[in-house]
Amino acid sequence: MARIVLKFGGTSVGDTDRIKNTANRIIDEKKKGNQVVVVVSAMGKTTDQLVNLSKEISAYPSKREMDMLLSTGEQITISLLSMALAEQGHPAISFTGWQANIQTENIHGNARIIDINPKKITNHLQNDQIVIVAGFQGVTNDSEITTLGRGGSDTTAVALAAALKADKCVIYTDVTGVYTSDPRYIPHARKLGAISYDEMLELANLGAGVLHARAVEFAKNYQIPLEVCSSLVRESGTIIEEEVTVEKSLIVRGVAFEDQITRITIFGLKNGFKNLSSIFTKLAKQNINVDIIIQNQTEGENTYLSFSIKNDDLRDTIEILEQNQESLGFDNFEYESGLAKVSIIGSGMISNPGVAAKMFDILSMNNIEIKMVSTSEIKVSTVIEEKYMIQASQVLHTAFELDKVELDVK
Amino acid sequence: MARIVLKFGGTSVGDTDRIKNTANRIIDEKKKGNQVVVVVSAMGKTTDQLVNLSKEISAYPSKREMDMLLSTGEQITISLLSMALAEQGHPAISFTGWQANIQTENIHGNARIIDINPKKITNHLQNDQIVIVAGFQGVTNDSEITTLGRGGSDTTAVALAAALKADKCVIYTDVTGVYTSDPRYIPHARKLGAISYDEMLELANLGAGVLHARAVEFAKNYQIPLEVCSSLVRESGTIIEEEVTVEKSLIVRGVAFEDQITRITIFGLKNGFKNLSSIFTKLAKQNINVDIIIQNQTEGENTYLSFSIKNDDLRDTIEILEQNQESLGFDNFEYESGLAKVSIIGSGMISNPGVAAKMFDILSMNNIEIKMVSTSEIKVSTVIEEKYMIQASQVLHTAFELDKVELDVK
Repeated sequence: MARIVLKFGGTSVGDTDRIKNTANRIIDEKKKGNQVVVVVSAMGKTTDQLVNLSKEISAYPSKREMDMLLSTGEQITISLLSMALAEQGHPAISFTGWQANIQTENIHGNARIIDINPKKITNHLQNDQIVIVAGFQGVTNDSEITTLGRGGSDTTAVALAAALKADKCVIYTDVTGVYTSDPRYIPHARKLGAISYDEMLELANLGAGVLHARAVEFAKNYQIPLEVCSSLVRESGTIIEEEVTVEKSLIVRGVAFEDQITRITIFGLKNGFKNLSSIFTKLAKQNINVDIIIQNQTEGENTYLSFSIKNDDLRDTIEILEQNQESLGFDNFEYESGLAKVSIIGSGMISNPGVAAKMFDILSMNNIEIKMVSTSEIKVSTVIEEKYMIQASQVLHTAFELDKVELDVK
Repeated sequence: MARIVLKFGGTSVGDTDRIKNTANRIIDEKKKGNQVVVVVSAMGKTTDQLVNLSKEISAYPSKREMDMLLSTGEQITISLLSMALAEQGHPAISFTGWQANIQTENIHGNARIIDINPKKITNHLQNDQIVIVAGFQGVTNDSEITTLGRGGSDTTAVALAAALKADKCVIYTDVTGVYTSDPRYIPHARKLGAISYDEMLELANLGAGVLHARAVEFAKNYQIPLEVCSSLVRESGTIIEEEVTVEKSLIVRGVAFEDQITRITIFGLKNGFKNLSSIFTKLAKQNINVDIIIQNQTEGENTYLSFSIKNDDLRDTIEILEQNQESLGFDNFEYESGLAKVSIIGSGMISNPGVAAKMFDILSMNNIEIKMVSTSEIKVSTVIEEKYMIQASQVLHTAFELDKVELDVK
């Protein structure tokens, strides 16, 4: 008998018919003799409706009250799903985040899970019940309701799987698995049979929004085998685990891309890089995510620093730089918007030093100028003009032989 | 500085505009220097919408999961109201039933409040915050979410007022106070300036749905002065307290009526009334509320028993009687639907023995047959044909001089 955690997103529970379908999927897993824990998100449009209500009242509502408001979304779903399972003759019991003892930091809107005491859930599993837990939400030591931020239900599922020592965590979503690239834009994108945690982490961070990065991190830390598959189509999905044995020959396993990038360049840093950390500390305090950083230290006045941010953060960034020009000690800065990031990901790169060079060659052959570069052991990211983003992704997808990936059905 | 508890029903928080209006009413009370605790119901149609969702899934959903589902309604309101107050510059904090430590019995759908630890709320009041609490809901010792049944938010407000030793509890509702009868049907019904707990209790039990009986009971037990007034119109309402000094001269203070009553009559009870308690125990187990009971014990076979129930419970009642005819030991039973109950209420009756007789006279003069009678120290109830219900109420209202009540504005 295996113990499994299944997570269903907002689409899978979008209306009462879909909730009934989801109940049937869950019952199939239960009938196999599994102990089943289910994590669900809010019904399709519920969260948007709640956000709209809050906007009618306040442009900047307190995050604490937003958590109070939004956490009702999942609570509605868990009760309805539990009813649907009972209706089919399968005893089920639903728990909110606080009832399931999902302890988080004392931060509203984007809390991290600190601890889960699984005792209550385990008792009900041993009682042959299906246990349904509200995703996306937790509780602080002071009994305050918190939410986990974007992709939070994935994190709930993986964290529960870890706490329950589950054999597997399956994330049901509206795509059929993890693809070599985004199939909406790259027609030849293929589904991968398996991928490593680290590769998935790079893909998640790079905007291939199938799974939230925090959930993948959690799975990696606790070595929980993850599976991503479709809630609508019954076919095998993508396994995410430590060692990927299939498709090993593939050096690059995915091409990810992200638009709306701005590059900031600061010139004439007077104290060299002594004040470098001050800049990034100030930006971090305003929740501005700095991605790629390039520095160029030379003798004399030519010292400069470039970094990339999301377009949305541009106004705040300019304000911080202008207000702190004196203390940070630089001559001037400029920015370039309308950029995008295109990355290739694959564990195989570690032992293949030519991969980055090949990427630059291909972009160059297509007359795509590379504005910035960043590399890690398993990925190479380039910043280019936004208008070339899809073209660049397509040519890289083809050049690294991803068009040919055979779907590996396990 | 007074400490007050204000309760707003579903109409007062029906949409975001009304929530903003309600926020202004609350701020007025705060500005008077009061410590303010607010109890709210779910927004207008939220509860119905949630019930409909559950019906799409299950005709008989578990009460536990219904509590899980319905309790989200008030949670939405408290967060929005808290945002609306903050938007006006008044710090507020919202709490669900469990966060506010509203402990209930371990019964779903209709739990009673056992205890409230007011420490948390008191702390926030001393911090000059407006505290908003979700009505209608509580939590058991096992961290299960419960709801309090119909009128539950009134009970929450009164129970909180008792726990917080509040100076007053104001129930804002969609009527302007307690009337001598239902003004929708009795055009001459007048608002009462004051009424005693006991009278209100009879009125509440008799279907004058302004306040739930349980809330009035609670207020009486803890001697909490209650005020019922309109959330829409700014005028004084009705005070409910122990000793009513105004309108003392009035023997009858109200006429209440309730339709959809069925009378059951059981003939030939073989063991006399030995098995009487068995019948009512069996009915109670099925949550069938038996109201008026009339018994007639004579020698021989003429022993019979009549009782009244709501029409809705007729099918279940018939089933129970048919299944248990042998063990209960009776010959046969019959029922008459299409009945109604009309009652007169007033503390003054205790010392005026002729009141019941006058009531019977008036009905008789109007050719209205009385099917059943029940009396207490402060009320007389009659069961009559439903078609005469409004007519009977009107003639009684006039005969007992209620048409002439002068509104006593305090």
